[in-house]
Amino acid sequence: MEAIQLKDYTIYVGPLQQSLPGFLDGLSYGALFVIADENTGAFCLPLLEKVLGHNRYHLIQIPAGETHKNLDTCRQIWAQLMEQHAGRDALVLNLGGGVIGDMGGFCAATFKRGIRFIQVPTTLLSQVDASIGGKLGVDFMQVKNSIGLFRDPLAVFIDPVFLETLPWRELRSGFAEIIKHSLIADVGLWNQLQQYHRIDEASWETLIGASLHIKKRVVEADPFEKGLRKALNFGHTIGHAIEGFALETETPLLHGEAIAIGMACEAYLSAKELGLPEKELEQAARYILQHFGHQALDPSHYEAYLHLMRNDKKNEGQHINFSLINPIGQAAINRHCSPALIVKSLEFYNALAKA
Amino acid sequence: MEAIQLKDYTIYVGPLQQSLPGFLDGLSYGALFVIADENTGAFCLPLLEKVLGHNRYHLIQIPAGETHKNLDTCRQIWAQLMEQHAGRDALVLNLGGGVIGDMGGFCAATFKRGIRFIQVPTTLLSQVDASIGGKLGVDFMQVKNSIGLFRDPLAVFIDPVFLETLPWRELRSGFAEIIKHSLIADVGLWNQLQQYHRIDEASWETLIGASLHIKKRVVEADPFEKGLRKALNFGHTIGHAIEGFALETETPLLHGEAIAIGMACEAYLSAKELGLPEKELEQAARYILQHFGHQALDPSHYEAYLHLMRNDKKNEGQHINFSLINPIGQAAINRHCSPALIVKSLEFYNALAKA
Repeated sequence: MEAIQLKDYTIYVGPLQQSLPGFLDGLSYGALFVIADENTGAFCLPLLEKVLGHNRYHLIQIPAGETHKNLDTCRQIWAQLMEQHAGRDALVLNLGGGVIGDMGGFCAATFKRGIRFIQVPTTLLSQVDASIGGKLGVDFMQVKNSIGLFRDPLAVFIDPVFLETLPWRELRSGFAEIIKHSLIADVGLWNQLQQYHRIDEASWETLIGASLHIKKRVVEADPFEKGLRKALNFGHTIGHAIEGFALETETPLLHGEAIAIGMACEAYLSAKELGLPEKELEQAARYILQHFGHQALDPSHYEAYLHLMRNDKKNEGQHINFSLINPIGQAAINRHCSPALIVKSLEFYNALAKA
Repeated sequence: MEAIQLKDYTIYVGPLQQSLPGFLDGLSYGALFVIADENTGAFCLPLLEKVLGHNRYHLIQIPAGETHKNLDTCRQIWAQLMEQHAGRDALVLNLGGGVIGDMGGFCAATFKRGIRFIQVPTTLLSQVDASIGGKLGVDFMQVKNSIGLFRDPLAVFIDPVFLETLPWRELRSGFAEIIKHSLIADVGLWNQLQQYHRIDEASWETLIGASLHIKKRVVEADPFEKGLRKALNFGHTIGHAIEGFALETETPLLHGEAIAIGMACEAYLSAKELGLPEKELEQAARYILQHFGHQALDPSHYEAYLHLMRNDKKNEGQHINFSLINPIGQAAINRHCSPALIVKSLEFYNALAKA
């Protein structure tokens, strides 16, 4: 059991049983609401239930998937809180991946102007990424997380046991964020990652811990994303656009799968704009391909990607904003790239398939 | 020109021309969005436009009225911000009454996880009430302000010239909050109010200033409504229920009109629960009737009122929470009253018509 102490709350990494019951016993609250989706309701709730023991709760179950991370689902959550007479002293426990954490947290933070919530992330992605930073929200008009706010949870409980409930693609999706954390801030972790030829060789406790410590360092230095924290957006400007576009198609991509593509493209931008050495670009692109394979990008979609990038909330004014790297392990924020160069980076990625 | 300095921002009371242009000139922002409704767009925007001078802006105009203070209208506002490519550096100016300030502020505070906004309240109610405290939100499932959050504006600009654009009922509605401020915290102001036999005799600059100083004192002592600030809810537990119910009928009440009824009822509760002297109860009830007249409450609606009160966000657990007074000028928070006594207070109010 590791307890990572942040400024306003603690992240407990280890078996839930060792941390959650004691935490709840020490808390005064009116009613407990567990928000889960169909999947976490089926696979994770039984594990949580054992741990909750005598603590009674209301279950709010919502449909699974990023397509439901929207205001309509928020309405369902708010309506159930209202119908169950949730008071301002109610407590929400979000049991699930990033969608549940972001949306359940947003609903709690805006219900009756804010009730308390705790996060129990069940995917690797949400364990390493969404559990620090207080970013909450839902998608709107195809733009990811465009309605939301910053609010810290009361606490976060990360139990690697939930990773056993994950499909392999989900696990790999979370691995993309660990790769990102190493690329922007920790060349030592990057070198360590080179050992793993397959994702299932990874030692999750160690990697989650290392990743959380990087994110803690970056976020605490810049809680409201005015500067340094933007480093975490590496791979996300292009990745979010590809993810947002794919969301509306028959073959949606998982977040990490899109971010992996975005990191390859933005490593190319890093080479062109910042002089990231050719060898490091190649190493990064090869590693991403090794773990994520290749998804051909249809050139007829480039314009749509650019349109989504122009609406990215990370922009200021009319520029498309990037966080790039040079060398590996170090980030540079607020870089602007021209649409022409962005298209070249997409072509670079496409050409990787032939290499 | 009076500048009331709060912890994180300033309220400027006086002609806009003397404060707003200089404030905007000192600010760096990407694009300016003015949110107005049909009424403030027609009557207040021309005044604002003169003051804005060379500052260009996008107008977001929404339908007027509390019935539109909901998530559907938020969607319209967010969509227009999105379509105009509002970045995180955009600035929102809310031009209107409480509905515009609460909803426009909520939309700004949640757009791309929060963009800056300034409030230009144009009704007496919003000038004395909504301009301090950072309470933002919209109505949901007939419960007022049940979706929202706390967030301070960048600044507030109060120009009494806008009061000339108000219908008389609107002006009187705001007067109810001034009465409330005096009843809970300032017997001197209460005695001063006794001079006014008609609302149009009032000296607005003085009353707005006095009212803001009371609210400032209360809110700064308790920014997140954990305790003292609840005093401001006097008249609001019953008043909100009556307002919420009337909203769905052919004869909706203005906020202050409903709160006036609520204050009469809750003064009765104050007499029964806290021993507010009979003479003070009578004086308060008479003053309210003198300015607001009498609205008969249909006993067949009592159950619906109670239902709305049970869902009031001010409750904790299953109790209906009240802020009461004793003596005039002093408040007591977290008082619970039984449904039977609440019904008696409604009957007390109804009986006033015969007195």
